[in-house]
Amino acid sequence: MKKVFLYDTTLRDGAQSERISFSLEDKIRIAQKLDEFGIDYIEGGWPGSNPKDLNFFKRIKEVPLRHAKIAAFGSTRRAQVLPEDDANLKALLDSDTPVVTIFGKSWTLHVTEVLRTTLENNLKMIYDSVKYLKSFGKEVIYDAEHFFDGYKADPEYALSTLEAASEGGADWIVLADTNGGTLPWEVEEILEKVMERIKKPIGIHAHNDSGLAVANSIVSVKKGATQVQGTINGYGERCGNANLCTIIPILQLKMNIEVVPEEKLSQLTDLANWVSEIANLPPDPSSPFVGRSAFAHKGGVHVNAVLKNPKSYEHIDPAKVGNKRRILVSELSGTSTIVSKVKEFNIDLDRDSPLAKLILDKITHLENEGYYFEGAEASFELLVRHLLGQETKLFDLISLRVLIEKIGDSGETITEATLKLNVKDQIVHVAAEGDGPVHALDQALRKALIEFYPELKNIHLSDFKVRVINGNAGTAAKVRVLIDSTNDKGDTWSTVGVSTNIIEASWESLVQSIEYGIMKVREA
Amino acid sequence: MKKVFLYDTTLRDGAQSERISFSLEDKIRIAQKLDEFGIDYIEGGWPGSNPKDLNFFKRIKEVPLRHAKIAAFGSTRRAQVLPEDDANLKALLDSDTPVVTIFGKSWTLHVTEVLRTTLENNLKMIYDSVKYLKSFGKEVIYDAEHFFDGYKADPEYALSTLEAASEGGADWIVLADTNGGTLPWEVEEILEKVMERIKKPIGIHAHNDSGLAVANSIVSVKKGATQVQGTINGYGERCGNANLCTIIPILQLKMNIEVVPEEKLSQLTDLANWVSEIANLPPDPSSPFVGRSAFAHKGGVHVNAVLKNPKSYEHIDPAKVGNKRRILVSELSGTSTIVSKVKEFNIDLDRDSPLAKLILDKITHLENEGYYFEGAEASFELLVRHLLGQETKLFDLISLRVLIEKIGDSGETITEATLKLNVKDQIVHVAAEGDGPVHALDQALRKALIEFYPELKNIHLSDFKVRVINGNAGTAAKVRVLIDSTNDKGDTWSTVGVSTNIIEASWESLVQSIEYGIMKVREA
Repeated sequence: MKKVFLYDTTLRDGAQSERISFSLEDKIRIAQKLDEFGIDYIEGGWPGSNPKDLNFFKRIKEVPLRHAKIAAFGSTRRAQVLPEDDANLKALLDSDTPVVTIFGKSWTLHVTEVLRTTLENNLKMIYDSVKYLKSFGKEVIYDAEHFFDGYKADPEYALSTLEAASEGGADWIVLADTNGGTLPWEVEEILEKVMERIKKPIGIHAHNDSGLAVANSIVSVKKGATQVQGTINGYGERCGNANLCTIIPILQLKMNIEVVPEEKLSQLTDLANWVSEIANLPPDPSSPFVGRSAFAHKGGVHVNAVLKNPKSYEHIDPAKVGNKRRILVSELSGTSTIVSKVKEFNIDLDRDSPLAKLILDKITHLENEGYYFEGAEASFELLVRHLLGQETKLFDLISLRVLIEKIGDSGETITEATLKLNVKDQIVHVAAEGDGPVHALDQALRKALIEFYPELKNIHLSDFKVRVINGNAGTAAKVRVLIDSTNDKGDTWSTVGVSTNIIEASWESLVQSIEYGIMKVREA
Repeated sequence: MKKVFLYDTTLRDGAQSERISFSLEDKIRIAQKLDEFGIDYIEGGWPGSNPKDLNFFKRIKEVPLRHAKIAAFGSTRRAQVLPEDDANLKALLDSDTPVVTIFGKSWTLHVTEVLRTTLENNLKMIYDSVKYLKSFGKEVIYDAEHFFDGYKADPEYALSTLEAASEGGADWIVLADTNGGTLPWEVEEILEKVMERIKKPIGIHAHNDSGLAVANSIVSVKKGATQVQGTINGYGERCGNANLCTIIPILQLKMNIEVVPEEKLSQLTDLANWVSEIANLPPDPSSPFVGRSAFAHKGGVHVNAVLKNPKSYEHIDPAKVGNKRRILVSELSGTSTIVSKVKEFNIDLDRDSPLAKLILDKITHLENEGYYFEGAEASFELLVRHLLGQETKLFDLISLRVLIEKIGDSGETITEATLKLNVKDQIVHVAAEGDGPVHALDQALRKALIEFYPELKNIHLSDFKVRVINGNAGTAAKVRVLIDSTNDKGDTWSTVGVSTNIIEASWESLVQSIEYGIMKVREA
């Protein structure tokens, strides 16, 4: 099979998503991760449009990349300006990247109504800009904006814009379905016409406004396109861009086109989750291939069949994309899962033991309440140990009070927590302030416990997540608080608390996080 | 154009989603709504599999439907049982629906490994079951499970299962891509072969495991299928079913096949949001056609062009599906975005005015602090009005106190808020309890303001989101609180607050939410 190149634009088009705002640091980390994963081209930003993107190109030069080429994105020169005087082209050159991607207009509507220039001049703008960039030895990717809409409006003109780019020396001609309204058979037909006329490598850049970005991308590859542009998790403006996390496994597993090394493909789910973490967006559980539910089986018929033969209800082996099968909690399938999970912390349990059943019932009950043990295995382990009669408790709570006070509209909000605990039969009564109620409780708890458990000084909270479970209940909604902790040996663990009261949920999670940390130190 | 029929399975296959659990009441309401919208077939459930579904069919008979036919779903008879003795077929008949949909096996793997019967007997099971149901005068839809996988494994056998159903008298033959792994060109090729052989109306039932359910559905219609099965919002097991909210506008607006009356199509966005409300799942903002972001424009270039001509960056007129264009304000926007945005609330501003610049600077500064105005347009409007010198403040805060108390490990957490406010020169001092600190503050605030602003009784908080912005700071992290509110006219608005103290951030968002709601009532 012909080589197909992956072009990622998460950092540019993906960042156009309404819900995304990457810091410069985020962008550097994502670029490194994409490089490690095996992406061929990484579009870092539009240096002509904002200073953050310009800084990115400065910073990324200091980062050693193994495989990927960095591309800077921008538009063709402006209508009345020579290339050498055009600020945007200058910014592209200043970015000092091996690859430059410039977009130009293919659609007469855009030329006359948006650019407000003549059709003839637009062709010159394309030709000049590409040629100018080529004269600096750049690899030039020409992005034909609105190509499919342009072709439908005026095929001859649309093709002539590609010819201008091609004659200017463009290395790639990329057809963009900018508004995302093109249907797969239209993409096929138009692509055929383009390939008859233009003898350059062709790429596809699809948007998902009709839910067809993946289909349009793979149909293009089938017809001969050798570059696919898209974003991780399909992030992008409006309905997003073509989702590379869907396209990559289709190309590789269903069309037998190797786009990344096989061992990298098995890190795809991690990559998708990691980027959603950086983007601070919840991962979509139903995302093809990489979603948490993508290989989850609920219906009884399906579960039984999958246990007989996974192929019966799974289109691919989930391990190939680093995902896993989940049998959703049901009495039959559940106890064997419990047994294999508790084995991880050296507890042997029989599949038919009443204890296995008890644990399963408890988990099922708590997950219905909104707990989430897959993201909080330390809480799961503590729960199992309690059910087994093991004692991990560090203290008894006598009383807890948090007072939050604000005087006047512009007054500072002051938070104070007081705790009265029974620790090893001694009464400890402490107070502490904090940046908010959870921070104040954390401070007070440490104060109360440190002399009894000096190991505590090496245990730190590293992350804190709050998720509203049933948002529709408004301010009376139930919340889940996940806390990640670390110790000086680099171990990390997560705990969960759930309540309609955010303070209660945070307290639950906080106490467990410390209990677990101390337990692990004592075990070691 | 040929008539194409819509078959909705939100209540059966959609309810297989890991995150969905409909009550009987929910199912009745959804069926009514789908009927009003113009869906042709509504699959209510699998009466043989659970009592809730059996009750649904009892209850739905009392509901007057205008247009839709109700279908009951079940499997072909079991291997060793006569149709008249089969419990599943009996449950289907007991459901007393005009339409019955039965699925059978097309894939030899499933026949031998899951059913564990012979290939020959499977054909008899299909033929017998269809014929038996037809003898009761039912409209019978035969659902060929795993048809595409079955065809790829053994084309002749797969086709012979369809022939068995057809000879049994099935009114429809529906090809199911049960595992969702089939590519669009495979669907086309296989469908062509089926249509050469089977002279019955054909339907398509696609799953989204490869992100291709919409493409596979519309490609089938293009090839001659006249029934499309899917769910609202694409709900369903694993990665979901074909999303009818995407397919309907493609058929109607891009393929010129009228599947619902035009005025109904303009209620599609409402339908999608309403069903997500009932399913208690957040609507996907990037959902094609119906998502909140589907016609949202952020980048400066796009905003300018859309203002010149909406077609330049919109593939359809959003009003046709009941959605609307949104111009987003963010640090990436220019003063022209600000100008067009404030025009939405009847404020005329010059692009070069110092005020436009001031607003932009303020937004940029606040977004750097962690605010997020794209998701909180009410906060943006209040901010602009304040910068313009307009007064929207309802009160001055004298003092605010929240006390959270828990006595003993298993003690209930009690939360009390006290507020002392100056409202229209009167001092109001109130206290209230709540399920958590934010709920308590909300209760106290309403208590304090209701006699001054009786409109408040029609304003409700509908959603509440907490996001930790810099999680790495642990419990001292900064949080952003978004609150969605609604009034009795169905208007909704969102406000944002940011602080290291979750109570402070919630208070900020809460106060704005009420301020904005009151302002809108007074303006109207």
